[in-house]
Amino acid sequence: MRTVYVNGEFIPEQDAKVSIFDRAFLFADAVYEVTSVLDGKLVDFDNHMKRLQRSMQELNFGPKISEKIFLEFHRELVRLNKVEEGIVYLQVSRGIAERDFAFPATDTELTITAFTQKKKLIDNESAKKGITVITIDDLRWKRCDIKTIQLLYPSIAKTEAIKKGADDAWMVRNEYVMEGSSSNAWIIKGKNIYTREADNQILKGITRQAVIEVAKQLKYKVTAKQFTVMEAENADEAFITSATAFVTGVVKINDKKISGGKPGIFTQSLREAYIKQALKTLK
Amino acid sequence: MRTVYVNGEFIPEQDAKVSIFDRAFLFADAVYEVTSVLDGKLVDFDNHMKRLQRSMQELNFGPKISEKIFLEFHRELVRLNKVEEGIVYLQVSRGIAERDFAFPATDTELTITAFTQKKKLIDNESAKKGITVITIDDLRWKRCDIKTIQLLYPSIAKTEAIKKGADDAWMVRNEYVMEGSSSNAWIIKGKNIYTREADNQILKGITRQAVIEVAKQLKYKVTAKQFTVMEAENADEAFITSATAFVTGVVKINDKKISGGKPGIFTQSLREAYIKQALKTLK
Repeated sequence: MRTVYVNGEFIPEQDAKVSIFDRAFLFADAVYEVTSVLDGKLVDFDNHMKRLQRSMQELNFGPKISEKIFLEFHRELVRLNKVEEGIVYLQVSRGIAERDFAFPATDTELTITAFTQKKKLIDNESAKKGITVITIDDLRWKRCDIKTIQLLYPSIAKTEAIKKGADDAWMVRNEYVMEGSSSNAWIIKGKNIYTREADNQILKGITRQAVIEVAKQLKYKVTAKQFTVMEAENADEAFITSATAFVTGVVKINDKKISGGKPGIFTQSLREAYIKQALKTLK
Repeated sequence: MRTVYVNGEFIPEQDAKVSIFDRAFLFADAVYEVTSVLDGKLVDFDNHMKRLQRSMQELNFGPKISEKIFLEFHRELVRLNKVEEGIVYLQVSRGIAERDFAFPATDTELTITAFTQKKKLIDNESAKKGITVITIDDLRWKRCDIKTIQLLYPSIAKTEAIKKGADDAWMVRNEYVMEGSSSNAWIIKGKNIYTREADNQILKGITRQAVIEVAKQLKYKVTAKQFTVMEAENADEAFITSATAFVTGVVKINDKKISGGKPGIFTQSLREAYIKQALKTLK
């Protein structure tokens, strides 16, 4: 049985509860981060904390919480649950208040919750075989750069993909691929690697950023530029990046097989190089 | 101290808690309704239930819950909390599951929560003086017809309005007014009353629908057609409708005073007629 974290306490998962007046529960007024764990340690933790602080600032969350506190309970959760490989999910909500659309007082105590999930991140089937994706209209709001829990549409998209026999969905605005339900989308054409520029329409992935740097070290040419569904379907290789997928090949987009139906050669080298790099960031 | 409802039980509000694994808390995967209470009874309850069932269907919630159960605990909450005038807030989430974007099994038990708020609905300051609104870009997702708890942006909009000294915000796409943060928007120009057509971009308000019918009975000409911010600023009268505001005059839009800075004459007659009609629906 898991031990989870709720506002300073480590408790059994079945006792982990929050008020029905919590603004995460009533207004989706909360932000989150997912940090990977490798060798029992946190991957790229500082960058996750930077993004979390930005999300909180963009939404005018009042109280500040030191990175040290976050680091301490992340480590404690990993230790208590003996996580060698997996993730820590962290959520910060604006806190508990009588239901009212207007934000409560800025000194309202934030609700901080976290839990672990064990997962095989390095050696898993998706990495070996690649994943298949469908494309779907992106109906989300226009501030997808803020990592909020307004995840109903990505949830719908992912469920729709599975229903259609695929692994995930890439969300599309005006023919252009935005991102996956919980990952950034990439294609390779000739010697060029493309991933969409990070503006308000997509999340600026921590893994996306790391992979851009890794690719440059490998002397690959990376361009932050959006691509259409048709360009993706006709790419030489395609892949996704996320904190849990790292770099995972996409081997089918809608009905079009990509790179012969298995993860491409550049994709594989990027995955290997990324994992090497990630292991250097362990904390 | 309030008594609230959580999954079949009536409990003190401070003990009303839900799992941190509830999908409302993690994915905003929940829908809601707000039903007004007048004379200790529910206003237009059947129509709220119809809309709730539609919201649940649109999101493929598995289990069905009979209207009778909803009605019984709504009435019990009103009785236990001695609500003469106010609201019952009802929320239905997809339930508790290990965190995963894909929907859980369709037989996952829904999480049903409800609570009351006492409010003066008939005789209140806003109704007498009217409210002021600003207009703000509508950044929400494209299925605002489903009454989900993805309310972060309306929350931001409302808070922004208050910061600017106004009471509420009207959300705008491509110059056109969509709706208020938690109300439908209306204007009157000459003998014509306009409110936006109800498609996927706005909520089909229960009060909106009732007011359309009331207006027709009064032989007013109502057209379901969107209007621009400029048209609104130059309207003869303006008002909002919602389960709690009923019909409330808008007396200022951005910097433009409307109907001399007080609720207009048609607005007032619509409010009176609506309340008379609402009292006939009590349950």
